[in-house]
Amino acid sequence: MNNGMNRQERYDHGMKVLSEIDGEAAERVVESLADVSPELGHQVVAWAFGDMYARPELAPRDRQLVTLGVLTALGGCEPQLYVHVNAALNVGLTPTEIAEAMLHAATYCGMPRAINATLVAKRVFGERGLLPITNACY
Amino acid sequence: MNNGMNRQERYDHGMKVLSEIDGEAAERVVESLADVSPELGHQVVAWAFGDMYARPELAPRDRQLVTLGVLTALGGCEPQLYVHVNAALNVGLTPTEIAEAMLHAATYCGMPRAINATLVAKRVFGERGLLPITNACY
Amino acid sequence: MNNGMNRQERYDHGMKVLSEIDGEAAERVVESLADVSPELGHQVVAWAFGDMYARPELAPRDRQLVTLGVLTALGGCEPQLYVHVNAALNVGLTPTEIAEAMLHAATYCGMPRAINATLVAKRVFGERGLLPITNACY
Amino acid sequence: MNNGMNRQERYDHGMKVLSEIDGEAAERVVESLADVSPELGHQVVAWAFGDMYARPELAPRDRQLVTLGVLTALGGCEPQLYVHVNAALNVGLTPTEIAEAMLHAATYCGMPRAINATLVAKRVFGERGLLPITNACY
Amino acid sequence: MNNGMNRQERYDHGMKVLSEIDGEAAERVVESLADVSPELGHQVVAWAFGDMYARPELAPRDRQLVTLGVLTALGGCEPQLYVHVNAALNVGLTPTEIAEAMLHAATYCGMPRAINATLVAKRVFGERGLLPITNACY
Amino acid sequence: MNNGMNRQERYDHGMKVLSEIDGEAAERVVESLADVSPELGHQVVAWAFGDMYARPELAPRDRQLVTLGVLTALGGCEPQLYVHVNAALNVGLTPTEIAEAMLHAATYCGMPRAINATLVAKRVFGERGLLPITNACY
Repeated sequence: MNNGMNRQERYDHGMKVLSEIDGEAAERVVESLADVSPELGHQVVAWAFGDMYARPELAPRDRQLVTLGVLTALGGCEPQLYVHVNAALNVGLTPTEIAEAMLHAATYCGMPRAINATLVAKRVFGERGLLPITNACY
Repeated sequence: MNNGMNRQERYDHGMKVLSEIDGEAAERVVESLADVSPELGHQVVAWAFGDMYARPELAPRDRQLVTLGVLTALGGCEPQLYVHVNAALNVGLTPTEIAEAMLHAATYCGMPRAINATLVAKRVFGERGLLPITNACY
Repeated sequence: MNNGMNRQERYDHGMKVLSEIDGEAAERVVESLADVSPELGHQVVAWAFGDMYARPELAPRDRQLVTLGVLTALGGCEPQLYVHVNAALNVGLTPTEIAEAMLHAATYCGMPRAINATLVAKRVFGERGLLPITNACY
Repeated sequence: MNNGMNRQERYDHGMKVLSEIDGEAAERVVESLADVSPELGHQVVAWAFGDMYARPELAPRDRQLVTLGVLTALGGCEPQLYVHVNAALNVGLTPTEIAEAMLHAATYCGMPRAINATLVAKRVFGERGLLPITNACY
Repeated sequence: MNNGMNRQERYDHGMKVLSEIDGEAAERVVESLADVSPELGHQVVAWAFGDMYARPELAPRDRQLVTLGVLTALGGCEPQLYVHVNAALNVGLTPTEIAEAMLHAATYCGMPRAINATLVAKRVFGERGLLPITNACY
Repeated sequence: MNNGMNRQERYDHGMKVLSEIDGEAAERVVESLADVSPELGHQVVAWAFGDMYARPELAPRDRQLVTLGVLTALGGCEPQLYVHVNAALNVGLTPTEIAEAMLHAATYCGMPRAINATLVAKRVFGERGLLPITNACY
């Protein structure tokens, strides 16, 4: 993998992976880093997406479930959750599954982190016309 | 406890507990979750307040001291601290005790978390006309 | 859901859910809590598994991916990871997928948390005769 | 407070506060730091206990509730929890209240942190002949 | 050190240390605490800067590298990072070194924390006319 | 940098960087991952050391100060601190500076994390015959 790619090729490969998952949101992050830490932007694209995300050992939908768990648990990652809730929808998770993943996380990282994450999901769902979610109700 | 209550009864019981501690702030949280994760709102009310908070093994004032400690330490829980500083006042903690609890937390979780929490307390105290606090001075 | 169940019925329901996911490891946790906090043991079974895990909105395999993400990110949850790596295998995740989920988490929560989690997975895989994992290699 | 005390006097004052709360456990921590970071040991005694803990704005029992909340939430602080569960008992919290404080924390920081903290409490309670706890049962 | 200083003298000593590192930003924090937790403001100045920061065992530039690492890793400390990125520049770290310190932190605490910290650095650098940074490029 | 290197060359480059900083401890980590997550081991070497650590924008001594800050703050990273306290000594930090970095961190992440980190440093210093540290004393 990435055998013999040069720096620019690794970046281009990462951008291709990224564009299949999340066209715009992540690109804006990279742009915002361009004048302060271009290398951080490069690593997000070339390493995080090009090297890591692209590996076939785990499907994109599965990766997003892990990512939602990690970001919900960490806290303070609302901008990254915004990117990854969009990505989660793009790779096939439903709004109900995303909300449920955050509810599930509450058991392990507590209610406040789950609420904060869910309100980010609400913003994304609202922007994409996906509210209210159609939850299995009682 | 909650023996044989059905889903709606558990929710109503939680709401009754909640209304004795914090009439409005928590209710707004639940409302904000209604279209994105109604079950998370339900669990906050029925489980966190109805099942857990209502237990007689620890007094509400004591629970709020623990909660202030947890939320200060976690960081990134400013919205939840806003709810729980209000609740802390409602169950009998004084502004001085609340500020002191956050100062005390600094020893164990560091100055930044304590400062962030204290500035939330300042907002609540200001809204309730409780500033400046009357600290034991030197 | 759980409408009208009494306390004992809720516990029994949770134990049934739990036994389908992880027969022994979680049970040992509950036992270890019996003389110090029986209510915490009860809540793990009746609430975390009976109320939360059992919800049909997310498949068990998906829940375990979220859980692995949360526990890897939190750090210091090695005993819980031990339980949930076992559970992850029981609900159909392969060792390769579990190791990859932890590798994926490294992007978001850093190498140390990923390494610590992976060494717990190694212990579980070793106990179940699943080492070395058969990774897609290069 | 501490007006004009010199370094040794501040340390002695902190040791006096400390000895009223926890005779031995904290002292062992300070000793373990003596050859690697005597200043850290000094700050624990002179600042954390002499300056902060000794302040009259919050009672020792209240401080321990905050501390239990903070340490449970932080995770990875088992050695410090061991000291502070002992201290909590020494200033008047009952085993039931301590276990309940950790159960309460689970709502906000999740089950794994609460379980890890509770197992430290179990160790302390066992050493002091306080098991099983006499919880209000159902 | 601080032998025999009284409370006011310890505060004045801390303010002197602080003014050499960061004239304004930290002072604003202390002011914002004046009516809600004057003691927290006092401890930030007298203890964190007067007692701890002033110690000669580590140079100010080195202290700021440690602080940038800690605050990046903690997350949710954007206001404190704002203060300490300014301080880092004031004690001789270059924008490139500060951005690189945060990039380096990504290995250990993940991309999201590093990105959030870097965007705080970007704000400070922008206010001080230091953008774009002049990174060693390829 | 790393332009056009293939996978094996990137690994070899990382190993060369690593061997200059820490000959043995990190290598043992990579070995322990070989049968469970060889890719995680590869990324630690090829990416974390070969791509990131090797960048000239920050000197190794500076990187270790940041790393000590991050790992102390994260908590639960004792095995990684063991590696990086050794590395810190190897790139020129003195035991006094390392202990002071952890003491400094206490201001921002609290006493428990600082104590836990310092006790790891004590173990490393002991193994290398560097105890007691020769602190500037009073």
